[in-house]
Amino acid sequence: MGSRIVTFGEVIMRLSPPGNKTMRQSHEMEFFFGGTELNVASSLAVMNCEVRHISNVSDDFVGESAVSFMKSVGIDTSFINKTEHPLGLYFLEVGSSVRASRIAYNRLNGSFANIKTEQVDWEKALEGCEYFHWTGISPGISESAYETLKEGLQTARKMGIHITTDPAYRSNLWKYGKSGNEILKELVSYSTIFIGGVNEINEILGTQFSSDQEGFIEACTILQQQIPSIHKVFDKIRIGVNASSQQTQGRAWVNDTFFETDLLEVNPVVDRIGTGDAFAAGLIYGLLHFDDEKALKFANAACAIKHTILGDINYCSAEDIMEVMNGNSGGRIKR
Amino acid sequence: MGSRIVTFGEVIMRLSPPGNKTMRQSHEMEFFFGGTELNVASSLAVMNCEVRHISNVSDDFVGESAVSFMKSVGIDTSFINKTEHPLGLYFLEVGSSVRASRIAYNRLNGSFANIKTEQVDWEKALEGCEYFHWTGISPGISESAYETLKEGLQTARKMGIHITTDPAYRSNLWKYGKSGNEILKELVSYSTIFIGGVNEINEILGTQFSSDQEGFIEACTILQQQIPSIHKVFDKIRIGVNASSQQTQGRAWVNDTFFETDLLEVNPVVDRIGTGDAFAAGLIYGLLHFDDEKALKFANAACAIKHTILGDINYCSAEDIMEVMNGNSGGRIKR
Amino acid sequence: MGSRIVTFGEVIMRLSPPGNKTMRQSHEMEFFFGGTELNVASSLAVMNCEVRHISNVSDDFVGESAVSFMKSVGIDTSFINKTEHPLGLYFLEVGSSVRASRIAYNRLNGSFANIKTEQVDWEKALEGCEYFHWTGISPGISESAYETLKEGLQTARKMGIHITTDPAYRSNLWKYGKSGNEILKELVSYSTIFIGGVNEINEILGTQFSSDQEGFIEACTILQQQIPSIHKVFDKIRIGVNASSQQTQGRAWVNDTFFETDLLEVNPVVDRIGTGDAFAAGLIYGLLHFDDEKALKFANAACAIKHTILGDINYCSAEDIMEVMNGNSGGRIKR
Amino acid sequence: MGSRIVTFGEVIMRLSPPGNKTMRQSHEMEFFFGGTELNVASSLAVMNCEVRHISNVSDDFVGESAVSFMKSVGIDTSFINKTEHPLGLYFLEVGSSVRASRIAYNRLNGSFANIKTEQVDWEKALEGCEYFHWTGISPGISESAYETLKEGLQTARKMGIHITTDPAYRSNLWKYGKSGNEILKELVSYSTIFIGGVNEINEILGTQFSSDQEGFIEACTILQQQIPSIHKVFDKIRIGVNASSQQTQGRAWVNDTFFETDLLEVNPVVDRIGTGDAFAAGLIYGLLHFDDEKALKFANAACAIKHTILGDINYCSAEDIMEVMNGNSGGRIKR
Amino acid sequence: MGSRIVTFGEVIMRLSPPGNKTMRQSHEMEFFFGGTELNVASSLAVMNCEVRHISNVSDDFVGESAVSFMKSVGIDTSFINKTEHPLGLYFLEVGSSVRASRIAYNRLNGSFANIKTEQVDWEKALEGCEYFHWTGISPGISESAYETLKEGLQTARKMGIHITTDPAYRSNLWKYGKSGNEILKELVSYSTIFIGGVNEINEILGTQFSSDQEGFIEACTILQQQIPSIHKVFDKIRIGVNASSQQTQGRAWVNDTFFETDLLEVNPVVDRIGTGDAFAAGLIYGLLHFDDEKALKFANAACAIKHTILGDINYCSAEDIMEVMNGNSGGRIKR
Amino acid sequence: MGSRIVTFGEVIMRLSPPGNKTMRQSHEMEFFFGGTELNVASSLAVMNCEVRHISNVSDDFVGESAVSFMKSVGIDTSFINKTEHPLGLYFLEVGSSVRASRIAYNRLNGSFANIKTEQVDWEKALEGCEYFHWTGISPGISESAYETLKEGLQTARKMGIHITTDPAYRSNLWKYGKSGNEILKELVSYSTIFIGGVNEINEILGTQFSSDQEGFIEACTILQQQIPSIHKVFDKIRIGVNASSQQTQGRAWVNDTFFETDLLEVNPVVDRIGTGDAFAAGLIYGLLHFDDEKALKFANAACAIKHTILGDINYCSAEDIMEVMNGNSGGRIKR
Repeated sequence: MGSRIVTFGEVIMRLSPPGNKTMRQSHEMEFFFGGTELNVASSLAVMNCEVRHISNVSDDFVGESAVSFMKSVGIDTSFINKTEHPLGLYFLEVGSSVRASRIAYNRLNGSFANIKTEQVDWEKALEGCEYFHWTGISPGISESAYETLKEGLQTARKMGIHITTDPAYRSNLWKYGKSGNEILKELVSYSTIFIGGVNEINEILGTQFSSDQEGFIEACTILQQQIPSIHKVFDKIRIGVNASSQQTQGRAWVNDTFFETDLLEVNPVVDRIGTGDAFAAGLIYGLLHFDDEKALKFANAACAIKHTILGDINYCSAEDIMEVMNGNSGGRIKR
Repeated sequence: MGSRIVTFGEVIMRLSPPGNKTMRQSHEMEFFFGGTELNVASSLAVMNCEVRHISNVSDDFVGESAVSFMKSVGIDTSFINKTEHPLGLYFLEVGSSVRASRIAYNRLNGSFANIKTEQVDWEKALEGCEYFHWTGISPGISESAYETLKEGLQTARKMGIHITTDPAYRSNLWKYGKSGNEILKELVSYSTIFIGGVNEINEILGTQFSSDQEGFIEACTILQQQIPSIHKVFDKIRIGVNASSQQTQGRAWVNDTFFETDLLEVNPVVDRIGTGDAFAAGLIYGLLHFDDEKALKFANAACAIKHTILGDINYCSAEDIMEVMNGNSGGRIKR
Repeated sequence: MGSRIVTFGEVIMRLSPPGNKTMRQSHEMEFFFGGTELNVASSLAVMNCEVRHISNVSDDFVGESAVSFMKSVGIDTSFINKTEHPLGLYFLEVGSSVRASRIAYNRLNGSFANIKTEQVDWEKALEGCEYFHWTGISPGISESAYETLKEGLQTARKMGIHITTDPAYRSNLWKYGKSGNEILKELVSYSTIFIGGVNEINEILGTQFSSDQEGFIEACTILQQQIPSIHKVFDKIRIGVNASSQQTQGRAWVNDTFFETDLLEVNPVVDRIGTGDAFAAGLIYGLLHFDDEKALKFANAACAIKHTILGDINYCSAEDIMEVMNGNSGGRIKR
Repeated sequence: MGSRIVTFGEVIMRLSPPGNKTMRQSHEMEFFFGGTELNVASSLAVMNCEVRHISNVSDDFVGESAVSFMKSVGIDTSFINKTEHPLGLYFLEVGSSVRASRIAYNRLNGSFANIKTEQVDWEKALEGCEYFHWTGISPGISESAYETLKEGLQTARKMGIHITTDPAYRSNLWKYGKSGNEILKELVSYSTIFIGGVNEINEILGTQFSSDQEGFIEACTILQQQIPSIHKVFDKIRIGVNASSQQTQGRAWVNDTFFETDLLEVNPVVDRIGTGDAFAAGLIYGLLHFDDEKALKFANAACAIKHTILGDINYCSAEDIMEVMNGNSGGRIKR
Repeated sequence: MGSRIVTFGEVIMRLSPPGNKTMRQSHEMEFFFGGTELNVASSLAVMNCEVRHISNVSDDFVGESAVSFMKSVGIDTSFINKTEHPLGLYFLEVGSSVRASRIAYNRLNGSFANIKTEQVDWEKALEGCEYFHWTGISPGISESAYETLKEGLQTARKMGIHITTDPAYRSNLWKYGKSGNEILKELVSYSTIFIGGVNEINEILGTQFSSDQEGFIEACTILQQQIPSIHKVFDKIRIGVNASSQQTQGRAWVNDTFFETDLLEVNPVVDRIGTGDAFAAGLIYGLLHFDDEKALKFANAACAIKHTILGDINYCSAEDIMEVMNGNSGGRIKR
Repeated sequence: MGSRIVTFGEVIMRLSPPGNKTMRQSHEMEFFFGGTELNVASSLAVMNCEVRHISNVSDDFVGESAVSFMKSVGIDTSFINKTEHPLGLYFLEVGSSVRASRIAYNRLNGSFANIKTEQVDWEKALEGCEYFHWTGISPGISESAYETLKEGLQTARKMGIHITTDPAYRSNLWKYGKSGNEILKELVSYSTIFIGGVNEINEILGTQFSSDQEGFIEACTILQQQIPSIHKVFDKIRIGVNASSQQTQGRAWVNDTFFETDLLEVNPVVDRIGTGDAFAAGLIYGLLHFDDEKALKFANAACAIKHTILGDINYCSAEDIMEVMNGNSGGRIKR
């Protein structure tokens, strides 16, 4: 039996000194497993969706631990391969207020970077799948990851699966000699739902739209002209007051119609990592259960509440998110 | 020799993952001893009052630990019984901002739930007592706890002791087949000082007063008409902005006179549990040392500063509270 | 699809101060999930067997955490019910050398104690099962747990499933008015493989055999005469030098033949809890993969290596255990 | 009402990196309160004796914490003074096997070092006292501590109280210009029960007895000749195999009779600090409850089990100690 | 070869319960090394300046640890003496919101308090030095510290070194019988750059200037009249909203010209200790690299960002500080 | 000014769950910096030798932390390059008794693996050097590391520096297509002091000598015949009883003479990693200060005491080691 949602991407370990300590001040680190697509998968699994994640992990006790984590949230790990390469990881120093958080990566020669097209039987992996989700991180890690993803997208497209994409361009990736923007454009052209906004469109199309509502609508219009498979665009706007305080808002362009959500404020921020992925997971959950406008609201609430959870994963049930969506401010204790 | 203040209620252990972690993310929990009436007792003991707490604990090393804790703050534990039932406990996941805190209880078959009237020699236990404090939690836990408390109230009344009550109704209690509202009304009728407001009065009397000043005054008036032993009403208003930010204010109706305190703001909230108990302890301390209006101010300041202390207990001296009452914002370091 | 091995029993949370601290010295506790039958299930799942565990957990975030743990080791949790009763738990102070470890329980009114026969669809739950494992703990917890287990045993017997039993009698259970020895004898009479020795046989049959080899053989002989369904007896002998040093040995009586393993020494002991369950899991694994004599050796090695793992679960692969079985002393680092 | 046992001495804080870490490897330290005489007091209080400790602590939150600790074990703290001097403390790096533990002190200008004779009302403090205990540490810390102790001893002697002494000479004390040996001899001459052996007698009397049984008997004989108030001598022999393994044995000379206990072995040692104090506390408990020979056995068992407890205090009940005395090796779990 | 910046002052250890816990709630403390002048030295070393610190530490493993810390940030420790006195230390309970932080000191008989003039060869120690920094803490600790510092200042003056001073008067020091204000005035008269404002000037000169801009300018004018060696005054204004929220601003009076910086807000405050020292270090760095106005901006930004770092030391690079100076709000993650 | 001892090799970070936990049981890891040659360098620096380490670290906060660590022990880091590649690291699960420790590496694409010959100015780096130390790990990591090392060895040889080598062959390295044994033989031919035994000689020369004394002498003889630059061979024998108990012994062949040390026993083992490096550091220290026989004894004692220190580095002073060498069993506390 297949899973309704399938994701593909790196399983990465995060290592972080406790609290707001810098590495130089600490002899301990907390660790978490994550990765942008796995974060989406995990959030959906926590909300009791059937989810399969496709990836490589290291063939050692670190990889075992990662698989154990995925199982713990209920993800189907039958398409996780074990390889001789070490698991990718990153170090995080958590900032506060005027001090930004810092990340140092160790991923470009890891298990996922070394994934090969022949390691994934896409037809089998996508059996029963309704939504396939990918992001712009995976093809930026290595050429073979790009090729493996492309094969997956082609298969998914053939099978008529909804394809959601968060095609963020990260300048610290794309070291293998290809142009990130061109490849992202190519891969987006297989997709049907675009999770991103003006920045992402400008990067892919080489345009210069402004970030306001008008610019957003123009950018979406051009995007759909150039990539007609995209029939829905959902965007989150993050207003980063500082490292400890954030505001989130969703907006969308669907069927030539613009709509947006209220602004949600989060102060203090417990953890910013994975909040975009919580938005994407919330959106997919919403699209499976609600209409587009409610789906956007749900996604924005999911994004907001993730800021209060330590680690990369949004450990909130759909009910928790619904409460935030319905204006619950968190002030009362649930007994 | 007796103690000036006597409290009766459950000794409960709190278990909580560190920081804002969820249980699923943790392999450790911090533990604290508390319980609404014990919190009042502990706060008063920390302020150097003579306090006795009456309760049952388990006859194992968990109960020993609880007794050791009570001794550490200076509570007289000579009326703590050891029983074969396990100590009651609860799990707490600490929320933040838009994410509410969550509690899961394991108390209804615990040491205190199994307390029997014959286990407390009330006359001896109340010897020398000036103030006896009880809350609506105890009679909600079990019928035998209700009966034990009732006997204590009758004894205290006969001995002419001031009886303070925080008669909060909790819907997750009252599983033993009695109506919480009726029993609370019965027990309040033995009491002399009411620590509560419109909500509590509406619950007990079945009325529908509004929460504003006018409603508060009307409710207090009716309360005293129906339960003439109540001659003072003190209330705290908590304005819960979110799980990380709170405002507190006290108001009162004494001798047909209304008075209230300034609003105190606490941001960030370190711990919300036990802040109402800190108010009650502050009030009793105030009534022992000040006039009613200053007592209310002291209670409100005690409530505010408790929000900055981890755990169920207000570890602040009367001097610490006085400073907050006098407008100290906490901005300077005390060397 | 069913699981090859099915277990039934309490999911219990263990709470323990770090290291060798007493509760009075600590404000933190580590927690682990376990339970004698779940320990067997987990060990088998860690060794990549298909395992299903049947139990009740609390319908709160504590129960969620327990399910998340079971999923993390790969146990099928589709027969875990959520109930309103709190999860059973126990506190452990870890001894050392001449100081014994101490346990305080809080389980008799927990989720599992309240399990009802109608909560388990045994025919469905045992579909595809080859081995069903139970212990003497479950029927000692509550009458309804006993009845639920009995129904399971009757169904398993009808379906021709191997039934392994570790019928330990614990004097701190059996509070509900039935004789533990009689009930254990009744339930053992449904079983086919007896994991226990002279003590257990004496308890069930009311006999007085001695612990030496001769007594063991006589006891086994009588056991099979009185309960003919039992065709194999496997026993572990634990020589407890002190709380920090132990020796283990296995012996068996199968087809009127006695055999035993070498003595394995463990010093220092990291954790004694769950070592008997590791033996049972090792035995079931062994029976599925090896002949009886090798199965016993494997079980003894599993028991030995579990002493080096913190918590209730044996996190060792079959390869790890095989190495101990083959005489690996642990002195070299595996790179 | 007075306490049956009164102790006088420093309340000292111990700070120690976790586990076997060195300070350079750590950013955290565990802390414990202790002090040789307070350790005796605490052990006795844990065994439910009525105990009063006389000392000075700092008048800050560190001193508050120390008082809170003493209350937690049940010590009467009404003769603890608060002074402007900081609480004494020491740092400990815990060794292992061939690496010895290391201690660095910060006590010579602390609260206790500054105690003055006028701060203790000895007649009131010793009211109702049966046993007064002192050690050779106190008079070595400062001249005023010596004088305060001397006044206490003179008062106790006048009141006919048993005076136990552990007159250990520590070369890293005695910085204030007096000869430790002479002062110890003077103070021992007020005492009635000598807890020490050949080393201590040699130090005080300037003799050169050997450590074997014969030397011990000769030394005790001479001691009683020179200091006739001493009518009982109890000694512990510690055979330190290495930092992780120890053996203890007690011997005594009472009424011209020699007796000794079995050797008890502890491996691994969790904490060596305070084991001598556990012996002294065990002895005083024994003298209050048993004959001299059983008292010595109890003291030796108390000393042995303390090696398994982290921190300076022996958190064991009389029952726990009795089990070790009766040969319990710690190998079984107490449920 | 000498260092461009030399500092002189106590190396002090800070001990603090984790998070916002009080000491009574904890069995652990985090420790950090600091001391107002060492904080300045460390910040400068972290920014890759050549820095030497002159002090005494204890001749034990605590002192070794302190030296190891200084080396870790790159400070030249060749003028650190080891002495028999224990290292000075302080305990900190970290407040929050309306609860102020509290400090208890143990320093007045420590290693630094016992420093002697003959322990520092000032000519050698100041070789190659461009800036010598001192604060009002050192001469308040002991008379010999005052004398040692005075000799250093005289030497530095002779060698034409810039002398920066933060002459804060602390009322909990100055126990050795000299008037703090007079001595501070004397020592300031050797200095060239005054880091302080109206409060500090009023203390030293016995004046009563107001805190507003006009008062500041008047105070600076009088200061320079009375102490002509001072040719620059740099001041930080801290607006302490509460223990968790602060605002900082710099202002200066240089060459009869007033200038000030923007207000920077920090919320939440991670740690307030050492923020003034971060200002001083930022200023010295700024004076070495920028003009006076930019130096003040840099100092203010350094002060702001230090509030986000746990411990006494500002672990930020010049680039990190520059970003805050340029308006970076910390809202983005640095990857 | 140069350093008397220079080392070259990887700076690697170790990540390990606390205590004996497996990764699956933990959310935290302790971290340490090490690496076989750095361990030697650190031990020597801790013993106050002048040491320089040559390596690459990552140009991020992880690399900064590593440099900060090296500075903290006093190593000259002026020849540490910062590169864009991540710092190498390994994960360690610490075994116990019959359970072996496990390591998973992530180093083959790290900072050191990418070191280039042009990144080290060997003549400058070796200025003033008396001993240059290398091991068989470095050339096994990458071809460029091998080439960089070879250049260093050639330079050192030209400069007449003593070259010590621990040429251990590790089968999990040597992935870049060269034969480890051949390269090791080539590199050993530049060296003068061989730290290794029969195994290492057999690997390099392809011989089959036995491990007994005779075999050792024969192997050494052949080694010197084939590689005449080697004029001293020092070997440690480790008798690994199990993961928690070890015995160490040193033996040597110098000037055609055999000598050996006593056997030292360590139980329990705190940490086995880096004990061979502690031997090498002890040997180099010994060669600088003692005759060869005493040097071997000192090396063996250093190896033994390292087993009691957590982490990769031997934090023991020469005095500490000397005490073990002189038979101190660790049983007494150093006050």
